[in-house]
Amino acid sequence: MTFNQKLIDSIQSKQSHLCVGLDSRYDRLPEAFRKDKTVTDAIVAFNTSVVDATADLTAAYKMNVSFYSGFGAEGLEALRLTTAGIRKRYPDIVLIADAKRSEMGESVDMTKREIFDWLGFDCVMVTPWFGFDTAKEYLTDATKGVCVYVHDSNPSASEFQDLILHDGKKVYEAVADRVAHTWNINGNVFIEAGATYPEALIRIREIIGQDMVILVAGIGPQGGKVESLRGLFGKDGGRLLVNSSRGIIFAGEGKDDYMSEVRNAAMSLRDMLRIISKGA
Amino acid sequence: MTFNQKLIDSIQSKQSHLCVGLDSRYDRLPEAFRKDKTVTDAIVAFNTSVVDATADLTAAYKMNVSFYSGFGAEGLEALRLTTAGIRKRYPDIVLIADAKRSEMGESVDMTKREIFDWLGFDCVMVTPWFGFDTAKEYLTDATKGVCVYVHDSNPSASEFQDLILHDGKKVYEAVADRVAHTWNINGNVFIEAGATYPEALIRIREIIGQDMVILVAGIGPQGGKVESLRGLFGKDGGRLLVNSSRGIIFAGEGKDDYMSEVRNAAMSLRDMLRIISKGA
Repeated sequence: MTFNQKLIDSIQSKQSHLCVGLDSRYDRLPEAFRKDKTVTDAIVAFNTSVVDATADLTAAYKMNVSFYSGFGAEGLEALRLTTAGIRKRYPDIVLIADAKRSEMGESVDMTKREIFDWLGFDCVMVTPWFGFDTAKEYLTDATKGVCVYVHDSNPSASEFQDLILHDGKKVYEAVADRVAHTWNINGNVFIEAGATYPEALIRIREIIGQDMVILVAGIGPQGGKVESLRGLFGKDGGRLLVNSSRGIIFAGEGKDDYMSEVRNAAMSLRDMLRIISKGA
Repeated sequence: MTFNQKLIDSIQSKQSHLCVGLDSRYDRLPEAFRKDKTVTDAIVAFNTSVVDATADLTAAYKMNVSFYSGFGAEGLEALRLTTAGIRKRYPDIVLIADAKRSEMGESVDMTKREIFDWLGFDCVMVTPWFGFDTAKEYLTDATKGVCVYVHDSNPSASEFQDLILHDGKKVYEAVADRVAHTWNINGNVFIEAGATYPEALIRIREIIGQDMVILVAGIGPQGGKVESLRGLFGKDGGRLLVNSSRGIIFAGEGKDDYMSEVRNAAMSLRDMLRIISKGA
């Protein structure tokens, strides 16, 4: 089974477009998880609780690797143990490494070892800046995925992504076209785009067609609106995945029952997405 | 002292435009270094020997982090010990993390901890794809540098970097202009470009002016020619840094005295660059 099929199956079997972002920054974890524990153990304990509270609600988990590597060897060991735990207990959930490892040639082999073999992910994310060389080494094993940042959610994403080309198109439109129609020849390439640029999201769906999955970033704290995703869910209403990180994993801050709030936040977003997807 | 000044001083005091790339992939190290040693110890021993053979010849060392993280925790520990050793024995040499950590906001804080605090580098490299957000958090500490990939050396670099904009300029030209004249407001931003696209290199020097440092990739095995760098060394002939990785660190393969060959390869390239820089 190709990576894209696994991802689509996960969305459909769960009837969930949710991707929970486990950006579990150690120094923001609740005191109860940190007390008397090593950095590694604290992060793993927190992640295990979040995963148990959300696993039936989410199609995927995405980890920004920097939130782990920022705490050195201990942080990365926590990441490795987290993915291993999810793999063992919830093997159908897709694990996405938000790692921006835009390598080429020999260093892609190294990145595969790091991200797939050592850290246990199903797919890696890359910028398109270096062109197809960044993606092509991933096409040899279609069971592992590669996600390309086509239009990001941050304020300065438009600085170069929205530059207008000689034919009137924008740079990100050229990228979307190439990624969908030239790069994705083996069924394991998908696309990231930001909900904070709703017009770009609409154009990307037009360009890539109905079958490719879009991973949407920027919902919630960054300002993106769930409502703006209407009509963009693709084939069978099942080709869109929406990431939420801080809005879910830190939903329990200051509350009595932290993990109930985490679960409620995940369920609320899953339900909203489910309703909007039906209208697609 | 700003990062850029440290880099320029290093080039000038050594009269060397060389940057040695310590892409010391464990499974390619000579058997003598691997025998009876852990992965960590083998990489550290090899790097220590390469550094001792080249430290007086090179202005900087660049490590592609993936060649270490590809060997997991042991590889990253070797990287940490390598930078710590260089810092102790050769404190003036600039240490560049080729890590493509194109993060934003909070995750930049994490990347700083990873790359500067844990792994001991002086600067990090980022793609410009996400715009200024990727660089701006680095401007708060001008003693640490950030290098932006403006035009890379790989075959598909032209896929998006050379797209033609509505005003007739290419995408990488717009990037060079923004990075040099808008981003580099604190003296710690520099630029990477590939020798395999000599016309782009000439345009980049025209756009950014004579004072910014360009780190040149793609010399040697990738096909870039030292000769094509003539006239591009900038102010005082001291604003260009040329990376060579495999061509130096593996120069001793199959030879009797491995490290003598490494030293000869480094000296040869340093001397060629010195001669060409005088003609600038």
